Amino acid sequence: MAWRFALMIDPVASDDEVGDVASTLRPIDPTAPALQLGDLSAQRGDGVFESIGVVDGHPHEVGPHLERLAHSASLCDLPAPDLAQWRAAVERVCAEAGPGESVIKLILSRGVEGGPTPTAWVTLATAPDNAAARRDGVRVVTLDRGYPLDVPARAPWLLLGAKTLSYAVNMAAIREAKRRGADDAVFVTTDGFVLEAPTASVLLRIDGRFVTPAPSAGILHGTTQLSVFAHLEQRGLATAYENVPVADLERADAAWLMSSVRLAAPISAVDGRPLSVDHALTDELNGFLLGRRG
Amino acid sequence: MAWRFALMIDPVASDDEVGDVASTLRPIDPTAPALQLGDLSAQRGDGVFESIGVVDGHPHEVGPHLERLAHSASLCDLPAPDLAQWRAAVERVCAEAGPGESVIKLILSRGVEGGPTPTAWVTLATAPDNAAARRDGVRVVTLDRGYPLDVPARAPWLLLGAKTLSYAVNMAAIREAKRRGADDAVFVTTDGFVLEAPTASVLLRIDGRFVTPAPSAGILHGTTQLSVFAHLEQRGLATAYENVPVADLERADAAWLMSSVRLAAPISAVDGRPLSVDHALTDELNGFLLGRRG
Repeated sequence: MAWRFALMIDPVASDDEVGDVASTLRPIDPTAPALQLGDLSAQRGDGVFESIGVVDGHPHEVGPHLERLAHSASLCDLPAPDLAQWRAAVERVCAEAGPGESVIKLILSRGVEGGPTPTAWVTLATAPDNAAARRDGVRVVTLDRGYPLDVPARAPWLLLGAKTLSYAVNMAAIREAKRRGADDAVFVTTDGFVLEAPTASVLLRIDGRFVTPAPSAGILHGTTQLSVFAHLEQRGLATAYENVPVADLERADAAWLMSSVRLAAPISAVDGRPLSVDHALTDELNGFLLGRRG
Repeated sequence: MAWRFALMIDPVASDDEVGDVASTLRPIDPTAPALQLGDLSAQRGDGVFESIGVVDGHPHEVGPHLERLAHSASLCDLPAPDLAQWRAAVERVCAEAGPGESVIKLILSRGVEGGPTPTAWVTLATAPDNAAARRDGVRVVTLDRGYPLDVPARAPWLLLGAKTLSYAVNMAAIREAKRRGADDAVFVTTDGFVLEAPTASVLLRIDGRFVTPAPSAGILHGTTQLSVFAHLEQRGLATAYENVPVADLERADAAWLMSSVRLAAPISAVDGRPLSVDHALTDELNGFLLGRRG
């Protein structure tokens, strides 16, 4: 992913410390050395992040993304991000985006080991071309995430539900999916429930309702899924958060992976079995998601 | 941890490509910006690492550490590290170590996103003062690692057993232990077996034998534990790799956390219950570990 713009947030404010925000946003060459080796993001994947989709310079779901960044920071005992400072950083970066689809990434690291403050930065890149995934769909394989459904609630130190920089397993799952001839993975629990994809939420249409796994299962609350639920509800359609048995992936009459940049990608196969794609609804959802939203 | 020396390995060789190794080791200021924002270590904790203890300029267990680095790289589908290049980097850094206890850290990152090669670096720091932990011991709490004992073998994409940079959970577990008034954590499986500490191996003396959890349970094979086993066996004592039920932590007449820098730290309490410390044997083990070994 070629980056077109980057800025450091320096110093990182915490909570209500905002002074002259603009002076804390320092544009840098995205290909120049910028981080110390001691930065805990690089040493231990110790930080949190968000990826925001941007269309024609307009960022989508900034509020939910910043709320989730703050939630992740809280789960990781990081200082509460100053949302005004982050919002200003997003605006500053979006001013560079230009026409077409872009992605901006927000990273809050625990900082340099032994140092006084977190480090933080925001980058801008051209989004990959996701037209084929949105049109033809993605073939997924189910992969065991290793834990039963009740673990996240009783073991918060596992940071399930935080969007941390410790993403090596997410990337390994996508490699495993490709080894199996698929495009993406869907994580499932050891006791047989659907969780999420490594970088997306799962949405099923089943018995006339739109269902997504409940975020209490230690998964991220998808910002795109939130927008889609609001959109479907406005159209009078039923939505629900539920514990979703793996068998429902076969029972569903349509299913999607939802994420901030690829948007709605219909699932065209699960573990090698074809799943029907609702092209009309998928186009409609992506039309909505590509529009100018909050 | 204040770093005293650092070098980049550039370019990173793979397998048998060694040419002029020395010219690929580039000393840098450890506090200067060195990594691009796009480095996947910082973006996704996507890489592997090792920490090596150094005493009076002599690095310990270099062979086992490099073997484990290669094993971790293999589990993560990273190019096989050129061990001659890494060995040369370790030697170069150790030449700067001077007297006393130091720690060197080896990091192999997947590289800059979209870039041609991994990035890699080695740092040198003065070791923290571990005298109190070695003498008085550490109080541990047991924390659920969230998975049953049989998961690592059937779900290799979870990277259990690889020493990856995705260490946020390990750090969160240590914070949770401190919140509970302890010094460190011991991870256990959902089905009640002892695994490892977030940054150390567990060793128990029970029924006259020295027992450590089997690395097949998705834990790291401890390099310090390997040296201690060899030492104990030379003294005619029995050692074993086993599945260790959590109840054995109470049954043991002594137990230790073993790691490359803190070395043998006796466990003085488990979940608030005192455990007897064998001071004589602990001193003997640390005397051996601090000596000039392979």
